[in-house]
Amino acid sequence: MRVLVPFEATDPKTRLGPLLAPDERAAFARAMLRDVVAAVDDAGHDPEVVATAPVDVDAPVTIEERPLSPAVNARLDTTDGPLGLLVADLGLVTADAVSRLFDPDDDVVAVAPGRGGGTNGLAVAHPEFRVDFHGVSYRDHRRAARAVGAAVRVVDSMRLSTDVDEPADLAEVLLHGEGRAASWLRDAGFELAEGEGRSRVEREE
Amino acid sequence: MRVLVPFEATDPKTRLGPLLAPDERAAFARAMLRDVVAAVDDAGHDPEVVATAPVDVDAPVTIEERPLSPAVNARLDTTDGPLGLLVADLGLVTADAVSRLFDPDDDVVAVAPGRGGGTNGLAVAHPEFRVDFHGVSYRDHRRAARAVGAAVRVVDSMRLSTDVDEPADLAEVLLHGEGRAASWLRDAGFELAEGEGRSRVEREE
Repeated sequence: MRVLVPFEATDPKTRLGPLLAPDERAAFARAMLRDVVAAVDDAGHDPEVVATAPVDVDAPVTIEERPLSPAVNARLDTTDGPLGLLVADLGLVTADAVSRLFDPDDDVVAVAPGRGGGTNGLAVAHPEFRVDFHGVSYRDHRRAARAVGAAVRVVDSMRLSTDVDEPADLAEVLLHGEGRAASWLRDAGFELAEGEGRSRVEREE
Repeated sequence: MRVLVPFEATDPKTRLGPLLAPDERAAFARAMLRDVVAAVDDAGHDPEVVATAPVDVDAPVTIEERPLSPAVNARLDTTDGPLGLLVADLGLVTADAVSRLFDPDDDVVAVAPGRGGGTNGLAVAHPEFRVDFHGVSYRDHRRAARAVGAAVRVVDSMRLSTDVDEPADLAEVLLHGEGRAASWLRDAGFELAEGEGRSRVEREE
């Protein structure tokens, strides 16, 4: 399946600003992007990065100036057959998790929800479905699928639901990540800080 | 499979104190417990609540004064065949998710990680494995399984990984919950608050 991977190349992961300098955010975001592209590829699909600026990654890159929703919908308009989408900030991604999402059935929209009501992945196999990433997009995409008569399949995956936006998410990458993003964090001096409740990260001085 | 469901009956869910009064925390915790027990039952397994005080739920209840780890290990000592464990605060639980965990293979320990390195579920089919819920228990349980020669199967489930401890977790219950816990929150006036980034909850005055 053709799988779009949108990537904010200019100033990514601003909510990690309390922990990472701008050049570190850029490097860490690229490590996650490369993990996502590799997982899509290893799962037997065809990744295609849609980025705001050129980026060095092992997949075709298209520069796109439109916002995310019209950029994706323009491609849905012109693609015959199923089209996939996966966000670029999945630091826990694996090919197995990707395979559970991109298993298309006719007239079905498969959705991988993200934390807090986002949409981290879609597999669109219905000709009339269009995306809208504004607002609580997981809920909106389920409604949009029903509105065009598409069945919805929700993929119950921790790895696909954990987009890495906030400092607490870095603990999940250290705990479960198997790729470049986890290695990047360890090389940058991050480790788990044990304490009461959920683990957070701390950084070597 | 026999499935233990530990339950803190006395003062549950203290980290939800900023949003819920003590009697509300008690009621919401019981709604989640009932969802977990029902999902285990619907998946064809035998739930057994291990509680710190009597609780009204549709399953056998044993009162237990020991801390969690020795309480579970005492039962591992005396159980022939596989033994399951599922935490009681899974407001997103479904029978399908439970079925993915409690699918035992010989000499395997299946683990469902929780947010921040916790252990939300275990299916123990190895005679020598014992639990230790202190610290980063997901990592420790993987090590303990390897130490006794048990294979480890990690269950990649958002529903099983989302234990409900912190205010942000309530948004996940509203978004994905299908049982009593989600209904309880709605009846108590909680709804999604849309905004930038991840959805949080707000409460009607």
